[in-house]
Amino acid sequence: MITFDPIGTIRSPHTDRTQIPKGPGAEHRAEGLLELRPELEAGLADIEGFSHLYVIWLFDRAEGYDLTSMPPTDDRPHGVFATRSPRRPNPIGLTVVQLLGREGPRLRVRGIDMLDGTPILDIKPYLTSVPVDTIRRGWLADAEQRGFRQGLPPK
Amino acid sequence: MITFDPIGTIRSPHTDRTQIPKGPGAEHRAEGLLELRPELEAGLADIEGFSHLYVIWLFDRAEGYDLTSMPPTDDRPHGVFATRSPRRPNPIGLTVVQLLGREGPRLRVRGIDMLDGTPILDIKPYLTSVPVDTIRRGWLADAEQRGFRQGLPPK
Repeated sequence: MITFDPIGTIRSPHTDRTQIPKGPGAEHRAEGLLELRPELEAGLADIEGFSHLYVIWLFDRAEGYDLTSMPPTDDRPHGVFATRSPRRPNPIGLTVVQLLGREGPRLRVRGIDMLDGTPILDIKPYLTSVPVDTIRRGWLADAEQRGFRQGLPPK
Repeated sequence: MITFDPIGTIRSPHTDRTQIPKGPGAEHRAEGLLELRPELEAGLADIEGFSHLYVIWLFDRAEGYDLTSMPPTDDRPHGVFATRSPRRPNPIGLTVVQLLGREGPRLRVRGIDMLDGTPILDIKPYLTSVPVDTIRRGWLADAEQRGFRQGLPPK
């Protein structure tokens, strides 16, 4: 068993799951705050130089998990590790946000897809070395070809 | 307090920290296995369609943390959340690996920068929507301009 203590809390305009665009293709433009515990503020030194950050967080309102489920972007079931479902064995979320500014222990960010009050586990600089043209997107690309977009079935 | 149970274990050629190329600019070409607990195998359904995966894991051999430290890619200290240091408040690691193949609950991957026996917390499909030309890399780009590369000081 591994135990973690949140390093802070997410302030989000989303207070209800239904307000959050769903599925890996969904666009998240919402702005919010990453509020660190004040005693951790020194850990943010020089973070302003990065345009994007990884936020690792807890799906604190998810209960239990399903090994396979139907994502909002498809009408076929997929394994949980091939989706971003909140109902996973360890309910860990991962989001790339754009860093807009910082005031002390608070980071203002764009791209929030978490609920207000979500516990933050870690923050890391976003760096990618994967060439975009080498990325294959599995069932998601397949579902898009069948007309699924951002959690909506084909018209 | 949040508790997690590992979903599996990393099989890596690296048994010692010194064997691992360090710093966010380091190239990781090593191959290894992500071995899931057999009862979670169904959660991997359709994962073969993705070329790259996020692996969220535990720095299980790190002890304690520093809010600021000197990364191997620079001679100046930075805040822990602006680095990938293992000595962080929650010792969570994040690696993008290339998926080479699957045999049951085992995924063969390239890009391993973890030690053999590392506990896996979660696996997710890698999808990026951040245009490469919008990414700023903060102190890391600055250190590279001063000649630092992959954990080695300027020649």
